[in-house]
Amino acid sequence: MKIQLVSYTHNPELTCIAAGKVCYSPDGFEEIQKRVARGDHGAFLENIIKMGHLSVIEHASFCFMLEGISRACSHQLVRHRLASYSQKSQRYVNENQFEYIIPPAIAADPELAGAFTRFMEQTQEFYAMLLRHDIPQEDARFVLPNAAETKIFVSMNGRELLHFFEKRLCDRAQWEIREAAEQMLVLVKEVAPHMFKTAGPGCVNGACPEGKLTCGKSAQMREKYKPHTTRVADGI
Amino acid sequence: MKIQLVSYTHNPELTCIAAGKVCYSPDGFEEIQKRVARGDHGAFLENIIKMGHLSVIEHASFCFMLEGISRACSHQLVRHRLASYSQKSQRYVNENQFEYIIPPAIAADPELAGAFTRFMEQTQEFYAMLLRHDIPQEDARFVLPNAAETKIFVSMNGRELLHFFEKRLCDRAQWEIREAAEQMLVLVKEVAPHMFKTAGPGCVNGACPEGKLTCGKSAQMREKYKPHTTRVADGI
Amino acid sequence: MKIQLVSYTHNPELTCIAAGKVCYSPDGFEEIQKRVARGDHGAFLENIIKMGHLSVIEHASFCFMLEGISRACSHQLVRHRLASYSQKSQRYVNENQFEYIIPPAIAADPELAGAFTRFMEQTQEFYAMLLRHDIPQEDARFVLPNAAETKIFVSMNGRELLHFFEKRLCDRAQWEIREAAEQMLVLVKEVAPHMFKTAGPGCVNGACPEGKLTCGKSAQMREKYKPHTTRVADGI
Amino acid sequence: MKIQLVSYTHNPELTCIAAGKVCYSPDGFEEIQKRVARGDHGAFLENIIKMGHLSVIEHASFCFMLEGISRACSHQLVRHRLASYSQKSQRYVNENQFEYIIPPAIAADPELAGAFTRFMEQTQEFYAMLLRHDIPQEDARFVLPNAAETKIFVSMNGRELLHFFEKRLCDRAQWEIREAAEQMLVLVKEVAPHMFKTAGPGCVNGACPEGKLTCGKSAQMREKYKPHTTRVADGI
Repeated sequence: MKIQLVSYTHNPELTCIAAGKVCYSPDGFEEIQKRVARGDHGAFLENIIKMGHLSVIEHASFCFMLEGISRACSHQLVRHRLASYSQKSQRYVNENQFEYIIPPAIAADPELAGAFTRFMEQTQEFYAMLLRHDIPQEDARFVLPNAAETKIFVSMNGRELLHFFEKRLCDRAQWEIREAAEQMLVLVKEVAPHMFKTAGPGCVNGACPEGKLTCGKSAQMREKYKPHTTRVADGI
Repeated sequence: MKIQLVSYTHNPELTCIAAGKVCYSPDGFEEIQKRVARGDHGAFLENIIKMGHLSVIEHASFCFMLEGISRACSHQLVRHRLASYSQKSQRYVNENQFEYIIPPAIAADPELAGAFTRFMEQTQEFYAMLLRHDIPQEDARFVLPNAAETKIFVSMNGRELLHFFEKRLCDRAQWEIREAAEQMLVLVKEVAPHMFKTAGPGCVNGACPEGKLTCGKSAQMREKYKPHTTRVADGI
Repeated sequence: MKIQLVSYTHNPELTCIAAGKVCYSPDGFEEIQKRVARGDHGAFLENIIKMGHLSVIEHASFCFMLEGISRACSHQLVRHRLASYSQKSQRYVNENQFEYIIPPAIAADPELAGAFTRFMEQTQEFYAMLLRHDIPQEDARFVLPNAAETKIFVSMNGRELLHFFEKRLCDRAQWEIREAAEQMLVLVKEVAPHMFKTAGPGCVNGACPEGKLTCGKSAQMREKYKPHTTRVADGI
Repeated sequence: MKIQLVSYTHNPELTCIAAGKVCYSPDGFEEIQKRVARGDHGAFLENIIKMGHLSVIEHASFCFMLEGISRACSHQLVRHRLASYSQKSQRYVNENQFEYIIPPAIAADPELAGAFTRFMEQTQEFYAMLLRHDIPQEDARFVLPNAAETKIFVSMNGRELLHFFEKRLCDRAQWEIREAAEQMLVLVKEVAPHMFKTAGPGCVNGACPEGKLTCGKSAQMREKYKPHTTRVADGI
């Protein structure tokens, strides 16, 4: 899995802080911008998020490139509808030599891993054979497995990302999208530390929402994702 | 493929007509409702749609159940984000005996069809074997193909449906989602004939948007989807 | 203020329950529907909501007509973006005799109430004078106050309604939109009691999100909105 | 009216071009980025837009600050729901000295303009009097007119902006939001000329959608908004 933060709104935190201050201030925007530029308004941003005034962090948008993930993973990803996607198309791209993701649980067992690899190779051959018989790519792809590698370009704003992290960093999320979410969180924390300071699975900021299905690790989760005090002093 | 219109907003057209009249009338809603109930306001609805005042037909929501479609098809479907989905989960449902869709281009060739069927059977066996080795369903599903059958419950409002039909009834859309769109259009036309009177691929209501990639069948398409004059007299 | 539930998705709870069961069941939809029709699945729906699987209740859409509210109120309402609106237009409708809402705090003081009424009458006269001088309605409306009465047709699905209730039933919400939310909740509880059983301000289902600005009435709020045990036995 | 483009996605066009190429290319993203950086891919972007593959330009988000517009204008603006807003609040900000917008049709007539100004001053006095009598700001604002100045921070992505321009540059749109749209178009054309090359009212890229209500100026509109050939050579 390879994930990059390709682009994002210039000055994501300053932008959202200035936008947030527009709501509560009688001043003109020039004055607001000056004030925002002078001081450290990280606490303002954190407080706005804490109070649930989340529309303010919608003004910052983040663009990621995800490669080396399975289509099983991308199918979960695209179910987040307040986001934008551009995905490698199995209708337009020839998948003769498709790469594939082996789930760790299978990779851990050499025998199963070998069988899995042979199955993927057979699938590649069958797919290629269909193309040789003039079956269009859009139909030959019916034999491609969920394991097939995909590439997808994703844009989400700060608010949707917080929601995405809440759902997909949960221990009960699928391992692959959880790994993607972890990498994405590291990347956005570098450019917007206050915005994502409290990001984490549901249990980190409240009670576990899974009820009877809880993983029972909420203490560990809180330890892992809770904001460290050192980060508070960082400034923006 | 089996598609049902499971539910929808009571009186979809009367509801949207009354909502539309709220915008332009000084009267109270009771008076508006009476007027709407008395007369035939199909032309009003058609005109509002023609002028692009499409928010009015968002008030009618339609719920469909789609069964017997491939996951290749459902993956295209869920990319329409202004809609709601509940899909059979390959994480929660055992897929030992998964059914599958054979593309017509493959079914038409007995030899390829036979090979396709054998490949699906091998996949079922491999999937079952993985489960027997205690691989969790969410990982075993990595071998499941795009051809695997899925069931999905879909809700879209009138405006999103018009957009969906425009894109997916196009001759260049994948055959399976095009077939689904055709069935869905028949179903909603029965309960909301004026709302979907002009529904069709892009070329039916304007120039083909595909440019160089055009199928060249826009005349046929217009013939197929253009509203018949008989329908105008239908009333609501 | 006059609020009606004008229309909604047929069988809102049965529809969502069936949709929810599609996710977890290997059965065909006909079988699922039979099972749903036979039993009482209210607890299933409540549990799905409790676990945050909220996309399931998006399949039910509710259409309201709101009359006798101020434009101050409607402007807050339309900020909920996952919804559909048709509002009486001040560009198309002559507002010579516009009605207006008096805030209770002003109505309670006879002197202020009198001054308020006179001010509204002056505004009506000034608006009428502008029209007599051939100023178009869209410009004359610049003098119309936030107090001016508006009518608005609103559609929201179950998920957005829960969010709307959470924000707008809060004691810190404006009194007018809070009153609208209360009436709307009563109306949808009649047709979808399990779906809205736990609906209420943020403090009812967790900690008060307002922090330092809390009203301090979360105990009262819980008393007011907490589901009564009698309602559990209701069936759908 | 003062409108600034405060921030936007870094390299908006290169970002969208790279995202668009992900759909059609078997290559890794590093290779795609190199290719995009080397060549001039403006024509690729223009073509993707022309064919209606608009999800690609959702990856670029643009943040505007609008000051000196009336609340009549902002109310139309916020009806665009695929966007994010932070607006100066009349609940939190004291409006004792509120500024106001005079419609040109009124300003053009000295007598009406004088009456308008006096009416605004009376409104300010009445508002201030209500506050002196301990009426909360959220209730005193009921007397504030549509003409009252507001400030609003707006973020929209490329796709929504094209839609916004189509609707709001129309000659039949209100003069104030049309002026805002014109300024916004100039601003985004500077940083994303290919993306907004064909932006304009509906009649510029097809038939006038207003039907009988058409302004009859579609030829002028085409002249005003049609892309100039010089701009084609610009590169990104």
